[in-house]
Amino acid sequence: MARSNLYGKHLITTQEWTKEELIQTLELAEDMKKERFSDKYAVVLKNRSFLMFFYNPSVRTRQSFEIAATELGGHALFLEPKSMRLKTATSAGETIEDAANVMSRYGVGLGIRILEAKIGAYGEGDDLIREYAEYSDIPIISMAHDKYHPCQGIADVQGYRAHLGKELKGKTIVHVWGHGALARSHCSVQESMLICSRMGMNVRVAYPKGYDLDPQVCEWTKKNCAENGMDFSISHDPAEAYEDAHVVYSRNWMSADAYHDGEFHKEDEVKKALPYTDWICDEEKMKLTDNGLFSHPMPIDRGHEVSDEVASGKRSICVDIAENRLHAQKAIMALTMGE
Amino acid sequence: MARSNLYGKHLITTQEWTKEELIQTLELAEDMKKERFSDKYAVVLKNRSFLMFFYNPSVRTRQSFEIAATELGGHALFLEPKSMRLKTATSAGETIEDAANVMSRYGVGLGIRILEAKIGAYGEGDDLIREYAEYSDIPIISMAHDKYHPCQGIADVQGYRAHLGKELKGKTIVHVWGHGALARSHCSVQESMLICSRMGMNVRVAYPKGYDLDPQVCEWTKKNCAENGMDFSISHDPAEAYEDAHVVYSRNWMSADAYHDGEFHKEDEVKKALPYTDWICDEEKMKLTDNGLFSHPMPIDRGHEVSDEVASGKRSICVDIAENRLHAQKAIMALTMGE
Amino acid sequence: MARSNLYGKHLITTQEWTKEELIQTLELAEDMKKERFSDKYAVVLKNRSFLMFFYNPSVRTRQSFEIAATELGGHALFLEPKSMRLKTATSAGETIEDAANVMSRYGVGLGIRILEAKIGAYGEGDDLIREYAEYSDIPIISMAHDKYHPCQGIADVQGYRAHLGKELKGKTIVHVWGHGALARSHCSVQESMLICSRMGMNVRVAYPKGYDLDPQVCEWTKKNCAENGMDFSISHDPAEAYEDAHVVYSRNWMSADAYHDGEFHKEDEVKKALPYTDWICDEEKMKLTDNGLFSHPMPIDRGHEVSDEVASGKRSICVDIAENRLHAQKAIMALTMGE
Repeated sequence: MARSNLYGKHLITTQEWTKEELIQTLELAEDMKKERFSDKYAVVLKNRSFLMFFYNPSVRTRQSFEIAATELGGHALFLEPKSMRLKTATSAGETIEDAANVMSRYGVGLGIRILEAKIGAYGEGDDLIREYAEYSDIPIISMAHDKYHPCQGIADVQGYRAHLGKELKGKTIVHVWGHGALARSHCSVQESMLICSRMGMNVRVAYPKGYDLDPQVCEWTKKNCAENGMDFSISHDPAEAYEDAHVVYSRNWMSADAYHDGEFHKEDEVKKALPYTDWICDEEKMKLTDNGLFSHPMPIDRGHEVSDEVASGKRSICVDIAENRLHAQKAIMALTMGE
Repeated sequence: MARSNLYGKHLITTQEWTKEELIQTLELAEDMKKERFSDKYAVVLKNRSFLMFFYNPSVRTRQSFEIAATELGGHALFLEPKSMRLKTATSAGETIEDAANVMSRYGVGLGIRILEAKIGAYGEGDDLIREYAEYSDIPIISMAHDKYHPCQGIADVQGYRAHLGKELKGKTIVHVWGHGALARSHCSVQESMLICSRMGMNVRVAYPKGYDLDPQVCEWTKKNCAENGMDFSISHDPAEAYEDAHVVYSRNWMSADAYHDGEFHKEDEVKKALPYTDWICDEEKMKLTDNGLFSHPMPIDRGHEVSDEVASGKRSICVDIAENRLHAQKAIMALTMGE
Repeated sequence: MARSNLYGKHLITTQEWTKEELIQTLELAEDMKKERFSDKYAVVLKNRSFLMFFYNPSVRTRQSFEIAATELGGHALFLEPKSMRLKTATSAGETIEDAANVMSRYGVGLGIRILEAKIGAYGEGDDLIREYAEYSDIPIISMAHDKYHPCQGIADVQGYRAHLGKELKGKTIVHVWGHGALARSHCSVQESMLICSRMGMNVRVAYPKGYDLDPQVCEWTKKNCAENGMDFSISHDPAEAYEDAHVVYSRNWMSADAYHDGEFHKEDEVKKALPYTDWICDEEKMKLTDNGLFSHPMPIDRGHEVSDEVASGKRSICVDIAENRLHAQKAIMALTMGE
């Protein structure tokens, strides 16, 4: 592969890439899935190193990125910044400027994951990633942060294209808040709203009052939908938004008050979520859809976000989408870092 | 290499593989030792990923598996499930079904290590591995668990074949409990009993009363010995079992009461082991053998399980066997995961 | 590459390598920088494994070694000895003899980092590394320990050769103690004194009273300087040593009393360093030099050891030198471990 037009580009949210760039990435991901262990992409990152900074631990993200680098002939370093002696508000240490300058000499790309209790206010993770991007000569890739999760978004759409056909225009996706005690980040659902609206889908969001999403994301989604002549809607009923949907994306997320006084208040969030037991995606609600697919970024909190029947049912494509993380990330790495 | 007859097969204990399969593995391991850095096996797992789950930490096991994958052209991921948000009895999280389904899409094999204080009752580690095996489409390899340690067993026999000749039929191995404060797992010695009896050796076990091994393992060992016309015996004297032995395997293990009330009682085990200072393998006892080899799965607790003289003596083959872990695991991975 | 004359050699300090060996390493490092991703060095460590023992965490050292192995076609294992069940003064476990014997069978080299609070007296880290070297058949490479940091020293000199010309004879380097609360190890500055004096530079050291360096290092530096007809001096003024210097190496280090009663007294060190605020490398002091380069092994404690203006200024070569760590270590690994 020669350097692509995307060489050197950061990926913080898909909203900052053009639709053409996203389609180019999706098509490469689809070919990479077909050609998984052929020689075609086996040396794209030959002997190159991708740096992964996990401020928060992860299962799938770490596995899928580390394996993506391996399958392209390269290597991913698993790094936990807690051992990095970086400067913080309260302790001396290295500045992000210095760290990013040096890493730009070592690696071909830098992935960062920061969310939940590793930040003290919504938006701090995004600020941190953008500070790295400012000082870095190599692409910064979000591996999930408080606002966005672009790799998940691309993997999601790869799944919808595989199961519904490449033309998603006019299809309807509903994002429903899921019951549960995990106070999850907004990033997956917000990214999904953005990329699905870019792809020409009608986008619905349904959640109990108090669980508002980022107003900027809602505004962008509305604008994306409008540009495609599609609808964007928000509602607060646990079932009605399912009607005639082609994809149901059920996922717990924390409330808009989860962060205050410089801290993430997980226990308050758990208590606040307790009463909403009817916000589970089950067979009965799925019957309202147009033979809808069930989508979830995993890990799934079975029995709370979704029933076992739906999660393991024939229309569940969660495992396919989890697999797509690998292909999508290989495509992103090849396009932004491959020579 | 084309796919072998063992492609896709789990390895939880050698007792579940046929003798032919074990001999095939041993012969491949022996050839891999000879051809270590030749091109012959350099791309068997090219760009493929092996997932390693260390519920318990380890030195040799992690090194030997990670290097095995590297030498076959692949990559091993070092994963600690504590950061995996898996479902447990007391906390919400991902089910093993979901985790195994996704990992089957990412990796070509999954190694699991779980023993000692990471379980609350003998057998729980084996149950967990079998639950992964149930939901996994890729081979599950035990990297040591509470009951078995198949890779150690194969490496042990590779060592005996190298030092005593390929025909082990009629040779005698004695497993003697070793003094010490480490309350070690039963897995290495139980696996050794099983595989040595399969290979046609006479198998002896000697330990202080109270240190009984798994009755199922003893029953299988007895049956394996009988099928080869060999003897299986258990005794409780620290010296007499050495008589005319060809291999002495000295190793501390925890008592049969180590787990109760849902916990591993390490401190009680340490106290219980204190009086048995004469259960050390030393030169005097080794003189009773037929110029016996000294075998130990390492790490060695020198001065307790065995004297320095024996551990560093001319008949000690511990380091050779530790090296064999690498070759044996390369062979296992090539046979069960190689294309 | 065929095996070099340096094959199998340990690297604990550059003082133990000949000047010819150091020049050979520097020239290979310079060529490796030019040929970074060409095929020339892409299989020097093909499928080989380098073991990294981090008793202390690190950023740059881990990244640069892991990437060095990758770029040579090999793999580096990130190992934390806390999970290694090694024998210590107070607990049973594996001896270094046994650990080193086995690792010699697995890897092609072993890197060790041990300093600061992981030792109880100055010199213990060096003793530990030498104990590994005694029992190991593969090269032991210091990845920074209490006394020396040879890879940093070689990377430093690679930087001076790039910016001042290959002939360093007659140039002057000044090592100035830097203000700050980090109580850093002596290893970088001591290694710099040794290797710069070997290269024929005049070596100056300046620090507040109480911050004496290792007398053996000072004696060797004096001898190295004398052999080249150059000067070695120690002074206690925060500015005068800058005069006409070609390189300024500003770095905080702990006092000579940092270890006592078997412990590292970091808090006392922080207090002791507080008054010396005028020991900062700033523009004003840099004006005294002969258009001097600013050198620092990073991470930089900006505002204490050095001003932002100098650290980010045109004559700062810290990031270049950090990059050189990669090239220097590739050269060291190729020469001592490559077939």
